Amino acid sequence: MSIDPNAIPIGERQVREAVERLKPWAHVTPVMTSRTLDERSGSTVFLKCENLQRVGAFKFRGAMNALLQLDEAARGRGVVTHSSGNHGQALALAGSLLGVPVTVVVPHTAPAIKQSAMNAYGATIRLCEPTLAAREAAVADEVARKGLIVIHPFDNWNVIAGQATAAWELLNQAGSLDAVVVPVGGGGLISGTAVAVKARSPQTLVIGVEPERADDARRSLASGKIEPSGDPRTIADGLRTSLGERPFAVVSRLVDRIDTASEPGIVDALRFLWERLKIVVEPSSAVVVAPLLERRIGLEGRRVGAVLSGGNVDLGPFFDALASRWL
Amino acid sequence: MSIDPNAIPIGERQVREAVERLKPWAHVTPVMTSRTLDERSGSTVFLKCENLQRVGAFKFRGAMNALLQLDEAARGRGVVTHSSGNHGQALALAGSLLGVPVTVVVPHTAPAIKQSAMNAYGATIRLCEPTLAAREAAVADEVARKGLIVIHPFDNWNVIAGQATAAWELLNQAGSLDAVVVPVGGGGLISGTAVAVKARSPQTLVIGVEPERADDARRSLASGKIEPSGDPRTIADGLRTSLGERPFAVVSRLVDRIDTASEPGIVDALRFLWERLKIVVEPSSAVVVAPLLERRIGLEGRRVGAVLSGGNVDLGPFFDALASRWL
Repeated sequence: MSIDPNAIPIGERQVREAVERLKPWAHVTPVMTSRTLDERSGSTVFLKCENLQRVGAFKFRGAMNALLQLDEAARGRGVVTHSSGNHGQALALAGSLLGVPVTVVVPHTAPAIKQSAMNAYGATIRLCEPTLAAREAAVADEVARKGLIVIHPFDNWNVIAGQATAAWELLNQAGSLDAVVVPVGGGGLISGTAVAVKARSPQTLVIGVEPERADDARRSLASGKIEPSGDPRTIADGLRTSLGERPFAVVSRLVDRIDTASEPGIVDALRFLWERLKIVVEPSSAVVVAPLLERRIGLEGRRVGAVLSGGNVDLGPFFDALASRWL
Repeated sequence: MSIDPNAIPIGERQVREAVERLKPWAHVTPVMTSRTLDERSGSTVFLKCENLQRVGAFKFRGAMNALLQLDEAARGRGVVTHSSGNHGQALALAGSLLGVPVTVVVPHTAPAIKQSAMNAYGATIRLCEPTLAAREAAVADEVARKGLIVIHPFDNWNVIAGQATAAWELLNQAGSLDAVVVPVGGGGLISGTAVAVKARSPQTLVIGVEPERADDARRSLASGKIEPSGDPRTIADGLRTSLGERPFAVVSRLVDRIDTASEPGIVDALRFLWERLKIVVEPSSAVVVAPLLERRIGLEGRRVGAVLSGGNVDLGPFFDALASRWL
């Protein structure tokens, strides 16, 4: 199956509706600026802090927007997804807020801490083998046996419309922008961002950034079809996924370009954001700041919005070291 | 020498003047709220994010306020202080902004990273032995030979009036508060806070929190004279100092009470602030959040302001571990 880029079913209306729908539920996250970042990048940068969104990631927007559009019968039966990361937590919280049962299929190799976070929101965890086939089989089984609705982490138009609300807010908060830069994993954020930005400000560039080691979106745009990324070894764990069909259709039509960040560049940007800006973000967020700091993105002198996608990072080793030293 | 608590020379006028004086220079830092923190503490908490102040700490307010009140001749000769921590960096930045030469006396045992941060702002570093006597001798020598003005980190009325502006802003931002909670080290922040808060809202409690292991302020208040703290072993490195004369006079007269935080409580609060609130703060800031999370401060149901004093913490080991794993 592939999606016709000329038949994208979401646009300004769906984004505006999602903004209204999410108002009682999602945070309007703050936009940070930094003199040091502006000096280093040569741009005027507006950082949309989705690390301060509920569950610590933009994913809450899409998950909540999707659940809010289910009818009563579907809400009663419940939903299922596969994600051991931010989408799983986001869906678990959204379900707990709305009283919708949530099942998350998780590879048994996933960190216990992630399972317990989803458990804390009342989600049912179904463990499976750590393969795509096992994951899909487990989801299909939940659908067949219980009639659960699948809420895919990114290949779902309602999820994409939800993610679009972050850039929509950013345009309200920062004013006119020459470019909006977002990380690219499965493509839910970049496709939502592109729909929102191009509807309101067609001349604003929409630029995706992905790790060099997980450059499937760049390769897919070049070849005109989805080029899967295998199992890339990048610190940006949220961006190891390949582009989905729906995101690919949007990206093909609306995104201006895909840049990449090296692993050392990602770590440097991560450290900059923690040490200088004093915010906890995850490596996937640092990916968009890396090419700005390195001035490899051609946006000097421009007003640039950048979406910091989330702040969920395992601080266990750091605090274990602190505790063993001090307690 | 001891200061008569009935002859405190700063009050509302000096704080208002400091607010105006600092306007072109200091950030009005944001105030954060957190549903989770409110649930855990039972209070409605407003976190004043001085970790987002310039140089990453409230100390910039006091240093800048002091430098701005020097006459031209004194500015030309320059200033000296002893501090390898936030005050040293704050004074170095303030001096570089105003063209005032800054000398910082630093024990040769201080981390190289702190010296290089001060160097980067153009300060002159004078190394000394890591003893109080050596430090004071080095400062006295700079004064005698070059006529430098000493800007003490906390025992200085203009510094205290500068620190007062954080709580002044907090009252503007959060509205009426039942209590304001701040960490206590040398006492510059708590004495400034007490002057600002009691001038505007006498019924608002001003509560200091210090590590159990560095409870010199609590002991000093109890005995009626300054009880030095030795060299306490606490993770809250900014709070190892004993209360100064001027701060002690203000604290004696205006502060309602001093509470303490255990080392495990400080580490738990630090982890909460990083993991849940996604902000990088230093252990000294976590000290004020610990008794709120533990509900040991008697402020359930109240509107509580808490000053997060700074965000300068050595992330080197964390990033070294990341780099060795990923690069």
